[in-house]
Amino acid sequence: MQNIHIEYFIKLLGKDNAYFDKAHLLAYSYDATRKKHLPDGVLFPRDESDVSKILKYCNDNQIIVIPRGAGSGFTGGSLAVNGGIILSFEKHMNKILEIDLENMVAVVQPGVINMDLQKVVEDHGLFYPPDPASQNYSTIGGNVSENAGGMRAAKYGITKDYIMALRAVLPNGDIIRAGKKTIKDVAGYNIAGILVASEGSLAIITEITLKLISKPKLVKTAMGVFNSVNDAMNAVYKTLASGVKPVAMEFLDSLSIQAVEKRFNKGLPTDAGAILITDVDGDIEEALINDLAKIEKLFKENGATKFTVAKDENERANLWFSRRNCSQAITCYGSLKLNEDITVPRSKLPSLLEKIAEISKKFRVTTPCFGHTGDGNVHTNVMVDKDDPEAVKRGYAAIEEIFKATIELGGTLSGEHGIGISKAPYMKLAFSDEEMNLFRAIKKAFDPNNILNPNKMGL
Amino acid sequence: MQNIHIEYFIKLLGKDNAYFDKAHLLAYSYDATRKKHLPDGVLFPRDESDVSKILKYCNDNQIIVIPRGAGSGFTGGSLAVNGGIILSFEKHMNKILEIDLENMVAVVQPGVINMDLQKVVEDHGLFYPPDPASQNYSTIGGNVSENAGGMRAAKYGITKDYIMALRAVLPNGDIIRAGKKTIKDVAGYNIAGILVASEGSLAIITEITLKLISKPKLVKTAMGVFNSVNDAMNAVYKTLASGVKPVAMEFLDSLSIQAVEKRFNKGLPTDAGAILITDVDGDIEEALINDLAKIEKLFKENGATKFTVAKDENERANLWFSRRNCSQAITCYGSLKLNEDITVPRSKLPSLLEKIAEISKKFRVTTPCFGHTGDGNVHTNVMVDKDDPEAVKRGYAAIEEIFKATIELGGTLSGEHGIGISKAPYMKLAFSDEEMNLFRAIKKAFDPNNILNPNKMGL
Repeated sequence: MQNIHIEYFIKLLGKDNAYFDKAHLLAYSYDATRKKHLPDGVLFPRDESDVSKILKYCNDNQIIVIPRGAGSGFTGGSLAVNGGIILSFEKHMNKILEIDLENMVAVVQPGVINMDLQKVVEDHGLFYPPDPASQNYSTIGGNVSENAGGMRAAKYGITKDYIMALRAVLPNGDIIRAGKKTIKDVAGYNIAGILVASEGSLAIITEITLKLISKPKLVKTAMGVFNSVNDAMNAVYKTLASGVKPVAMEFLDSLSIQAVEKRFNKGLPTDAGAILITDVDGDIEEALINDLAKIEKLFKENGATKFTVAKDENERANLWFSRRNCSQAITCYGSLKLNEDITVPRSKLPSLLEKIAEISKKFRVTTPCFGHTGDGNVHTNVMVDKDDPEAVKRGYAAIEEIFKATIELGGTLSGEHGIGISKAPYMKLAFSDEEMNLFRAIKKAFDPNNILNPNKMGL
Repeated sequence: MQNIHIEYFIKLLGKDNAYFDKAHLLAYSYDATRKKHLPDGVLFPRDESDVSKILKYCNDNQIIVIPRGAGSGFTGGSLAVNGGIILSFEKHMNKILEIDLENMVAVVQPGVINMDLQKVVEDHGLFYPPDPASQNYSTIGGNVSENAGGMRAAKYGITKDYIMALRAVLPNGDIIRAGKKTIKDVAGYNIAGILVASEGSLAIITEITLKLISKPKLVKTAMGVFNSVNDAMNAVYKTLASGVKPVAMEFLDSLSIQAVEKRFNKGLPTDAGAILITDVDGDIEEALINDLAKIEKLFKENGATKFTVAKDENERANLWFSRRNCSQAITCYGSLKLNEDITVPRSKLPSLLEKIAEISKKFRVTTPCFGHTGDGNVHTNVMVDKDDPEAVKRGYAAIEEIFKATIELGGTLSGEHGIGISKAPYMKLAFSDEEMNLFRAIKKAFDPNNILNPNKMGL
């Protein structure tokens, strides 16, 4: 980075908000992909006006800008793959600006941590459902940029379903607003609709207005035990098609169960082919009991050998601990985890899991699967030894075939992690040239100089 | 229209699917705004391939194309204000292609009528909630293009909340797909998100994949009677903020009540200042009774003088008939209805209605109001005599002040009707130059030759 630019940024923001030394650059060079790309600088804007000035300057000087939340993304969205300036919201733009009880709305800055928001709104008897696995550290800005999902998506939907309005800064420095604190707003194009999941490539989001709902008074958790993955997958979609609306319907295959037990010893059935963990919630005890009875019946009709309802908060916590720590536990199978969040229409789950088993066998890789089967999303982890180049090659070959199978089943490359750089090579499997051209035209409409998080998403 | 173009279209589609005679052009020259603009031709594509060929030809020859559903829009979105070809889906592209019970998804062509879809899915125990007042004739394609709302939006949201995937044709003839039959899909830009509410100005939607939900087994309807609009508006947002989730919370002011009674004599309380009609639904009788008890308590705490629950289907039907036929009944107040669907955050409803009353007084116009107060949407009707130019002028002046008040209260020009041509002059009240520039850049990204429904939405 040229000295003239460094001086501009330090003058604008002060030394404490503009880092250019190697140690700090290193700290912002990685994300959850474990890949590393050194940025040219790290800036901490104090407010929207700072963001606007930074973007205008960078646009005029063709400097790349990469917005960054917690750096917890799985696809490299916040990595400075071509250098440039990291824009971090963790220092200043991390405030909950308003909890509007009358309209059941929260207004937050992008750097607010998901769980912090959840806690604050729950203190008011309200509920912000999107709960990505990263909820303890990922930010709302990042959640919006990736359209994060979570465990509760089966009933409550995902981040985009809660966005009422955004403020954002365009690459040229223009400040725009999109949406209102209203349930409905059809004036002008749905800019919030295109900014969600745009992976920081169209505009920098500076304020987010989120819909809240009432907090359900009661929640109950149950576990179904199955001999095979196939039985469990059939149970998932038959249960959901029956009209029961579980909050979550999460799945662990036998490899995942065994890994969790080995590491944490929480009492999961290690001889099971698969388990399903499900939550139901509501305000009336009787309704929850009804729902669980229906789920038990449907699980058992589809081969569940056991169905247990967690007796207390401790048992609930144990089941959810097991699910939430799957990702960490399965590292026992290999030092490199190729972790994909493929998603199919839920009726295709049995076929997808069969296909994954075939592909694992073909490429001789271990592939523990778990995830949000309630919304058709299977976290598929191809585990290989990172120091064995031949195994790594086989791993990537397996991933490519898994993507192909997913697309053939009417599914998508990503249910919640986004494309970033990790999945960029596979975009051509999922999108036609015409579709990619449209993406590029949209990118250009927002960012004609291509300064904002360029070369991501296969663009 | 030049003969060479007419010959091309007739050769492509056959005489029965390409009209150029005056009588047919007249039939497609109007919509619910009662404004008339003669198109140059009306085409009935048989399939997506026809749409692609037509668009490519029109793009190459700079011919304007205007998609049209049922022509029931309130803002002139389907009017050929600058001539051009009307693309109608009513003849061929009007099929329900699939009801996928396993994934609870419907796949439809744009010309399917909303109510036809509702009936078919309800036969399967499923539910498609968006129910615009035009549900008996408006099409799903039109609903998507305008992001239609309806009575049930308070609980169930609006059209955009049900769109899982779209197929569409770009102005250059390229066919694109957006989204999947999956709850989650974050691969690539959210094209479906920007096409919804784009009023046919970005692409021609050729297929729509909609999320369905389980049909609630029970529904109950109640009416609260209030002495003043202000009491009713306070009751609305306090009830909603309490956590009860009514399906609908609809409002009629005294002018609306009197008009409905005069015309239909359904037994509404003509001495009331306002009434609220509310629906609750669910699968458990006890839960519905609980909800109604909570609503009754909150209504009465906010000045309701009476709260009655409809005893049977007949009483329910009568209440809803009154609400649904308001729009027609209030024509007794004037031969010209300036009908706006302004929407504010629901806590601002009391202020909005006060402001409307002031403005009505100032401009000496009669302004019956009713609508979807459960989502902050008030149908505000400035009624004047169309043959009295001075009154019409006062009417438009009142409308402009009502829009200004709405924006000041954090609201939007349109909750569900869109902008079209009717609200285009007011876009500058709601959007900055920077925002309008962004809209224009997006329009250009999709439609560089500006052939698709041009000169709408203030663009």
